Amino acid sequence: MLEKALKNSSKSFDFKDMTKQLEMDFSRLQQEIAEKKLPVIILLEGWGASGKGAVAGEMIKMLDPRFFRVYTTAAPSDTEKRFPMMKRHWEKIPEKGKITILDRSWYQDLAIAKMESGISDAEYKRRITAVNTFERQLNDDGYLIIKFFLHISKDEQKKRFGKLREDDATRWRVTETDKKRNKNYSEYFKQFDNMLEKTNTPYAQWRIIDTSDRKFTRFQVYNTLVSQITNALNIEHRSFAPEADNFTDFKLSSVDLSGKTLTRDKYESKLKSLQKDLARIHSKLYNSKIPVVILFEGWDAAGKGGAIKRLAATLDPRGYEAVPIAAPELHEFNRHYLWRFWGHLPKTGHITIFDRTWYGRVMVEPIEGITPRERAEQAYNEINEFERELTDSGVVIIKFWLQIDKDEQLRRFKERENDPFKKWKITSEDWRNREKWDEYEPLIERMIGLTSTAAAPWNVIEANDKLFARIKVLKTVEDRLDEAISQKAKADKKKSEKK
Amino acid sequence: MLEKALKNSSKSFDFKDMTKQLEMDFSRLQQEIAEKKLPVIILLEGWGASGKGAVAGEMIKMLDPRFFRVYTTAAPSDTEKRFPMMKRHWEKIPEKGKITILDRSWYQDLAIAKMESGISDAEYKRRITAVNTFERQLNDDGYLIIKFFLHISKDEQKKRFGKLREDDATRWRVTETDKKRNKNYSEYFKQFDNMLEKTNTPYAQWRIIDTSDRKFTRFQVYNTLVSQITNALNIEHRSFAPEADNFTDFKLSSVDLSGKTLTRDKYESKLKSLQKDLARIHSKLYNSKIPVVILFEGWDAAGKGGAIKRLAATLDPRGYEAVPIAAPELHEFNRHYLWRFWGHLPKTGHITIFDRTWYGRVMVEPIEGITPRERAEQAYNEINEFERELTDSGVVIIKFWLQIDKDEQLRRFKERENDPFKKWKITSEDWRNREKWDEYEPLIERMIGLTSTAAAPWNVIEANDKLFARIKVLKTVEDRLDEAISQKAKADKKKSEKK
Repeated sequence: MLEKALKNSSKSFDFKDMTKQLEMDFSRLQQEIAEKKLPVIILLEGWGASGKGAVAGEMIKMLDPRFFRVYTTAAPSDTEKRFPMMKRHWEKIPEKGKITILDRSWYQDLAIAKMESGISDAEYKRRITAVNTFERQLNDDGYLIIKFFLHISKDEQKKRFGKLREDDATRWRVTETDKKRNKNYSEYFKQFDNMLEKTNTPYAQWRIIDTSDRKFTRFQVYNTLVSQITNALNIEHRSFAPEADNFTDFKLSSVDLSGKTLTRDKYESKLKSLQKDLARIHSKLYNSKIPVVILFEGWDAAGKGGAIKRLAATLDPRGYEAVPIAAPELHEFNRHYLWRFWGHLPKTGHITIFDRTWYGRVMVEPIEGITPRERAEQAYNEINEFERELTDSGVVIIKFWLQIDKDEQLRRFKERENDPFKKWKITSEDWRNREKWDEYEPLIERMIGLTSTAAAPWNVIEANDKLFARIKVLKTVEDRLDEAISQKAKADKKKSEKK
Repeated sequence: MLEKALKNSSKSFDFKDMTKQLEMDFSRLQQEIAEKKLPVIILLEGWGASGKGAVAGEMIKMLDPRFFRVYTTAAPSDTEKRFPMMKRHWEKIPEKGKITILDRSWYQDLAIAKMESGISDAEYKRRITAVNTFERQLNDDGYLIIKFFLHISKDEQKKRFGKLREDDATRWRVTETDKKRNKNYSEYFKQFDNMLEKTNTPYAQWRIIDTSDRKFTRFQVYNTLVSQITNALNIEHRSFAPEADNFTDFKLSSVDLSGKTLTRDKYESKLKSLQKDLARIHSKLYNSKIPVVILFEGWDAAGKGGAIKRLAATLDPRGYEAVPIAAPELHEFNRHYLWRFWGHLPKTGHITIFDRTWYGRVMVEPIEGITPRERAEQAYNEINEFERELTDSGVVIIKFWLQIDKDEQLRRFKERENDPFKKWKITSEDWRNREKWDEYEPLIERMIGLTSTAAAPWNVIEANDKLFARIKVLKTVEDRLDEAISQKAKADKKKSEKK
């Protein structure tokens, strides 16, 4: 891909006036970006000394600084390495109407990591998929992604390094790594080529630019920016979202709630022993460096809070975070809806407990008209991809649906209204939601049917009896974590034997 | 203070039943905290092995995990050290109706830092003031702060360390630092005592607890929690906010706007030379490790955006952040109003440019009824304290008020309405604000009068002519940064000569 792209370059023409016009266009388009609330990501990759910094610097001179943000991406820090790879990249996506400019980006975790951090072929492949999925999900949400790869030849690079080293003020910019990369230029060329090929998608195409001539570089950069932004603002947006490829037929009526009860005595004794076990497991988990997501969905008053409380009571408070999810605030609403969840993902050895989750996208959001039905429909597959990305990077996901019937809900609502200490828990919104029970039911069934994947299956909990439900939740967590810890121990053992 | 407090302890009584009752009360109070939207900070300090972790662990067993968050505070990381000291602590304050529990806190930056990081007496004193100001500002905003110091004797500590070291599972918890601290117990005792004395204030009193007996400890902890929370929920809140002790008489009418103009030619040539200078200064600034805050306030259409754009164009995009401030979102509104600004403060060598600021508190907020006038009145001093805290920790603050007259505003509003590219910049809200010009004027004068401090004076810019205003802004920034860099160089030289 690199070779072919480079053949088309030309240096024989003076592009100065045309560039000037394009710069003005770019500056003007910025206002349209703000008005039409288009979120834009511009990323710069390329060889060392190919001029990424200079191009970024020129670009922003045309922009209102309140509407863009520049980030530099280095190799991940030790803390960043403890999170799923894409977290640090997700966190930088702009709000609608704003621009993020990236001087190096997630592509540092691909070719460079492959060449220098010794990641396996399988891991490289996994990362390619993760990046393509990320860019496609952003595109499907209306983001415009403009990707530049700035190219120079081996000789040109060597010359530029030499020039930088001659000057006291710039000598520090040429590192040992840079020299090594220049020496092994042809291997890097192959690896970059492979990466560009594999991530050149209809929703995020690469623009490869020969930067040996500065004026021609500027012309090409602005020309690309103006044409891609103009297109995004004026041509109908094209989504590439595939449908979920996973379906299990599921009916809520198949959940047998009868007889799923526990006496208070039995509950107390089971609770005591489970809590002891889980405290022990949590410290093992920490040492095994396994990150865990435990999430709760269920009808209003199904007992999510009570179950979370019993679960949390077994855990070391420094090792978990409980995250209640309410309606999105403006800065959340103005970004891809998965953004706010990425920010709360656990690092290795830690647990995040979500009280309501990203599944709001396929339940309350279409019902309340917050998200159009067609758009919500895309979320089943997006969520599967999201969870897959997490489990692939080692996160254990435990999903609970707490099921009660309509009579039980009514009983609990009334109980809450009559209890001065619980009255605050029930609002007119709860009653309104209750009226929509029949609208929710098919969406819940569809959700469980489409998002019960092998890596992250739903656990449906019979919750008409709170005591029974809590014990089943704790037991499920215990079993799942026990299993994960022993699998991890086996895998670690295998790895160390190989060495 | 320590000795006196410890005399009152008692071990002769069985507190079990009373503690049980208090635990229930605490659990119930949590709902009232949520309902009445009381923000609560509970912090645990004390000797190593005094049981801070155990107390925190017990406390949270009674709480709904969705309403609290536990943080452990260690010595500041290298990155944290590059920010003003209180930033990492400000960031952890809870929203209204929620509880933050701190296992060690900002007090680690006091006594422990004094004993182990060799901070000077002057710096120690400064930090005491910073902490007291922080706690008073939180109190004045309605926060409840409960501070525990868990005490054990030298012998008891030695015994507990010994016990921990006997067990394989807990041996790692006793570090070399712990042993050293036990050896020098009496010196630490004196330092803790001094710290407790100096930070025992009417708005955040210390509760010193002898933890030699576990049951008595629990009783005292719950007793304190229940009584302090009950008080906070039921007794009228007492504010300790002092008035601003700084006043310069200032009238907007004294700003002479006439003749403050520049021709386009003069502007272009001045701009060119200033931008060159500032680019050079920015890289010096980075090497001098000076953090900078540049803030813009001014009438609607006074030209803040244009000035910021020209300023930003001179800077390395990796070294600054431009932060536009809009009306607070819910998670911001639910915390102390300074919270969201602390999060954007620059680290050493970096610049934050604020487009509108914390001064909204004393202009738009009282006028629009977002904050009651009496409460807004407290902000003058709070802001002076805030800015003082920043300048004391080395931040350079440059404040701009862009002044135009009413006719010029009208001209610009109309111009914007008639320009298809600028039309989006003008809304009905702008016209509404314009009607309140006469309400704003005295508040602006009061603001400049009360918050023009020696460390952070206002720069009033005559802005009827945009070109003139931009040049004056850039020139002011240049002069101020030049001065700061040479001062820093002198101070650094002095320091290195001392060594």
